[in-house]
Amino acid sequence: MGKLYVIGVGPGDPELLTLKAVRIIKESPVICVPKGREEGSSLALSIVERAVPLDGKEIIEAHFPMRKTKKQGQGASGKWQERQGAEEKDELNNKWNEIAETILNRLRKGSDVAFLTLGDPAIYSTFYYLYDKLNTLHPGLNTEILPGVSSITSSAASAKISLGLADEKIAILPANYMGDLRSALETFDTVVLMKVHKVFDEVVKLLDEMDLLDRAAYISRAGMDDEKVFHNIRDAGPEDLNYFSMVIVKK
Amino acid sequence: MGKLYVIGVGPGDPELLTLKAVRIIKESPVICVPKGREEGSSLALSIVERAVPLDGKEIIEAHFPMRKTKKQGQGASGKWQERQGAEEKDELNNKWNEIAETILNRLRKGSDVAFLTLGDPAIYSTFYYLYDKLNTLHPGLNTEILPGVSSITSSAASAKISLGLADEKIAILPANYMGDLRSALETFDTVVLMKVHKVFDEVVKLLDEMDLLDRAAYISRAGMDDEKVFHNIRDAGPEDLNYFSMVIVKK
Repeated sequence: MGKLYVIGVGPGDPELLTLKAVRIIKESPVICVPKGREEGSSLALSIVERAVPLDGKEIIEAHFPMRKTKKQGQGASGKWQERQGAEEKDELNNKWNEIAETILNRLRKGSDVAFLTLGDPAIYSTFYYLYDKLNTLHPGLNTEILPGVSSITSSAASAKISLGLADEKIAILPANYMGDLRSALETFDTVVLMKVHKVFDEVVKLLDEMDLLDRAAYISRAGMDDEKVFHNIRDAGPEDLNYFSMVIVKK
Repeated sequence: MGKLYVIGVGPGDPELLTLKAVRIIKESPVICVPKGREEGSSLALSIVERAVPLDGKEIIEAHFPMRKTKKQGQGASGKWQERQGAEEKDELNNKWNEIAETILNRLRKGSDVAFLTLGDPAIYSTFYYLYDKLNTLHPGLNTEILPGVSSITSSAASAKISLGLADEKIAILPANYMGDLRSALETFDTVVLMKVHKVFDEVVKLLDEMDLLDRAAYISRAGMDDEKVFHNIRDAGPEDLNYFSMVIVKK
């Protein structure tokens, strides 16, 4: 059996690949990348192409099921699967199985496989759905996970903000957080809000109410070539709202 | 004026340096590294030395004031400075000024300076204390912050744990968290505890009470060569407790 490497390729700049990521990608005959409906899914490949020659490698572009989070405004309780029909559940399940079998097929032939994922694998990478599948189909699979630079710390670097010093507590809220946001802002020293484009106005309103508007930076297209940093969230306009948007509130 | 680069060198493995970190370090004639009383402070240099030749560069080892967090058990409120005598405060202040002046001196001569910091600069790096000083002494300083792999995501990679999927919320608690831990465990899907060696028994007791002991992984010397991962926190013994210890609770 070959070995499966799961590689965090960083947030966008090819120079933020680690030395190890570059070496393992060079050594792997098979590259697997997620490709979904939402923007960002095949970005991982375009980042790597700009730093590592991929000629002669097999590239598997796996269409990932992308309906993972609950719709905004449906409350914080319950898992996303519970709100999906049995049909959709089966479809997703089949999709994951298909991708897992494709990867296992290459590994069984003795090829190492490099699975690319945007940012860092531990930070909201859909790979972990696949990982469960792979481990069910083939328990004890030889896997190594390579951490990468996450879009969160990359945004903080661009905005020149420390996310935490000494005993300051950090909360990371990825989606569907309007119900919990006030309490998180009260309890934590730093709050990171992801995918904020969907609830931007509500977030700004709450920050204003809590007198925190001056403590909030907005990062549009965090980690991408065309990233924009707004040290004052008030300066961001509708044209700056997008999927890769992030707010860092530092009290 | 030269430019100041603040470089996250990752958690320990020299191969986790980014391509950009390597390039900028190679190009910088002056390297500044923190060196303090606590273990870890000069680690950044030893990581870089194993990946980049430093011959001919000026290496400034800056002794950093290291008393930053409150003592355990003194409660969550109040800032650390408030509990320190005026004398100690002056001493720390002088120390920061001294280091800032040393760096500014090199920048004024037109040399770029690479300031190395363990992990990622936004994640509890003492650099940001220095940054405040530098900006006070020289407003508008030309600075670029290079993000790196943090010990948090590196630990998650070693333990093969996702810190968050879909809309799961993550809390990062760095120190002095016993008072807030129960509530964080109730509210968040994933809780990361740093520097857990000081309160290990208390943490285990609370996790047991909350029936979360099976959901807690322990990583000793996170990111170092001799890192150890305990998928079951019960397996960690007193010999495994140290400054670079981390617990990931994933509900």
